[in-house]
Amino acid sequence: MPAPQTVRISLGERSYDIAIGGGLLADPACWRGLPAASAALVVSNTTVAPLYAARLRAALAPHYKQVHEVVLPDGEEHKDWPTLNLIFDQLLAKGCDRKTVLFALGGGVVGDMTGFAAASYMRGVPFVQVPTTLLAQVDSSVGGKTAINHPQGKNMIGAFYQPARVLCDLDTLKTLPPRELSAGLAEVIKYGPIHDLAFLDWIEANIDALLAREPAALAHVVKRSCEIKAEVVGQDERESGLRAILNFGHTFGHAIEAGLGYGEWLHGEAVGCGMVMALQLSLRLGLVDEAFAQRVTALIARAKLPTAGPALGAERYLELMRVDKKAEGGEIRFVVIDGPGRAAVRPAPDAVVRQVLADCTR
Amino acid sequence: MPAPQTVRISLGERSYDIAIGGGLLADPACWRGLPAASAALVVSNTTVAPLYAARLRAALAPHYKQVHEVVLPDGEEHKDWPTLNLIFDQLLAKGCDRKTVLFALGGGVVGDMTGFAAASYMRGVPFVQVPTTLLAQVDSSVGGKTAINHPQGKNMIGAFYQPARVLCDLDTLKTLPPRELSAGLAEVIKYGPIHDLAFLDWIEANIDALLAREPAALAHVVKRSCEIKAEVVGQDERESGLRAILNFGHTFGHAIEAGLGYGEWLHGEAVGCGMVMALQLSLRLGLVDEAFAQRVTALIARAKLPTAGPALGAERYLELMRVDKKAEGGEIRFVVIDGPGRAAVRPAPDAVVRQVLADCTR
Repeated sequence: MPAPQTVRISLGERSYDIAIGGGLLADPACWRGLPAASAALVVSNTTVAPLYAARLRAALAPHYKQVHEVVLPDGEEHKDWPTLNLIFDQLLAKGCDRKTVLFALGGGVVGDMTGFAAASYMRGVPFVQVPTTLLAQVDSSVGGKTAINHPQGKNMIGAFYQPARVLCDLDTLKTLPPRELSAGLAEVIKYGPIHDLAFLDWIEANIDALLAREPAALAHVVKRSCEIKAEVVGQDERESGLRAILNFGHTFGHAIEAGLGYGEWLHGEAVGCGMVMALQLSLRLGLVDEAFAQRVTALIARAKLPTAGPALGAERYLELMRVDKKAEGGEIRFVVIDGPGRAAVRPAPDAVVRQVLADCTR
Repeated sequence: MPAPQTVRISLGERSYDIAIGGGLLADPACWRGLPAASAALVVSNTTVAPLYAARLRAALAPHYKQVHEVVLPDGEEHKDWPTLNLIFDQLLAKGCDRKTVLFALGGGVVGDMTGFAAASYMRGVPFVQVPTTLLAQVDSSVGGKTAINHPQGKNMIGAFYQPARVLCDLDTLKTLPPRELSAGLAEVIKYGPIHDLAFLDWIEANIDALLAREPAALAHVVKRSCEIKAEVVGQDERESGLRAILNFGHTFGHAIEAGLGYGEWLHGEAVGCGMVMALQLSLRLGLVDEAFAQRVTALIARAKLPTAGPALGAERYLELMRVDKKAEGGEIRFVVIDGPGRAAVRPAPDAVVRQVLADCTR
């Protein structure tokens, strides 16, 4: 087995490595040098725990006297306080102290909740991301954004809190349902139009290989996605500027998720459709041409992602988007494509947004 | 009216000033230079809001287009998630963006919850402490510890998150119930045995003036307490070492609060009694002499604080203290007086702790 590849997130004393490779859960070398403690808590969900929790616990056993576990219900609709509290309940029931290391074993929901629990338990304990979905491996496990949802807005309650390490075992992608694979590809495709046209070319050329889960193709997209994310987050950890471009498609996407009720669409599905809307907005604002918008939209469709949003009504979309975290003084700010390979954040007239919504929902 | 005095908390880019004086709520000069935003949210409780919220809102009106308000139920028993969520509900109902400034108007509970809400709302918005109790002015509003309680442990869920400013209007102490005044004096007395024997002398000489709320005496204790806290927190913001000494009396005290049910005793009352227990422990460990332990205990009694704890049973005390945030690997670590004016953090044999509890409860 080839040695895992490493991508470094450079954030001063909060820097850490992302290890990417096949078989990491079974490779003892990957589990050395983690934060020292007497106890670890594996946080997973009802879908992932039966598949991988035993392997992770075995990997941790040589390093922690006690390895506890808590299994959360699966799904975005459970990314809320009562579910988060299950983690705190378990930590306190097991008498876990403030050196205890949390391990997030699962997708974006598990990672976001474990990270926020780690940020908040006793005002901060270390945590490690062990993402098992493509979406988590290419995006959500990296960069320290943690949160839970509020009924009125996605990821409204959370913290910037960096993990001590990220371990992406590519083998876990073998068990991923096809819908989840496509959802992950949404966040992969995202990096092209906002930052890296060569990567966009590569994804177009390899989309069938990715859908067929060819290991070399998956290894490349995880590594390249993490590299781009590392570059952006390294420049703007707390999203005072540049980092917002990573939210391409997310303003519309979060509105879809909240409007339909969390868990109805997968986050990546909403982002895929949200990118189509953001491309149409960019087009109507005269920032990209029709050909580029069509090109990226076609790729999103090839990834088996939805390209039309639910008919929530334009007013409901606008209402939901006004509580987006990028909004300022009640004005929605959109991530738009400002020429191929470059993103910008700007407001847009409501009338134009309504046109986009009319075109892109059904 | 004399100009307010200022104590600086030096924490690099997170540094801020504490303003201390009479009439600050009515002095426009004190409310300039706060973080800029279109909206502010005043967080208070049912006791304090009727007394001071209108004044604070008037002070903020020239600086924020919108000044919203949320009034929480009063008391330590409400320092929990459902109450915290009232703050998030109001922020989202009013469409507050991530520049919104939160103002904590009240005592330690309001300050701790507002701070944690500010740390978590959209992953962090600025906040300002406007403490209206002696306890909050001398201790809890300064230093960035924020938290809510978990049924199994005090302040278990929170963040280190510094305010942008602290404004201590000494006039608000005029309306403080006597029990709350005594509770605040517990945190004042604390600074003597752990750090400053000259201050201990001063408190002993002026305890009657403090109980009579003489303005000059209150001004001195607030300023000197903040200076000591600034010195300690400036050296150890996240409690990796030194800062733990500020928890003198708190390990026993938190057990009393959790054991009786939050809100039964005031936090300061539990700390007062907890200091008596910690002094007895220090004595039994041979770290201080009987005379010093008696001297501080007598001062705690003169401040009208309890010096004997509730009879929860030694095993229940030990169980509750094992989840204390200073505990490591199941071993309780106590702040003890290691000679007059100097504190240390160390474990103690259960048998000795049981003797202390037998002596100090009834």
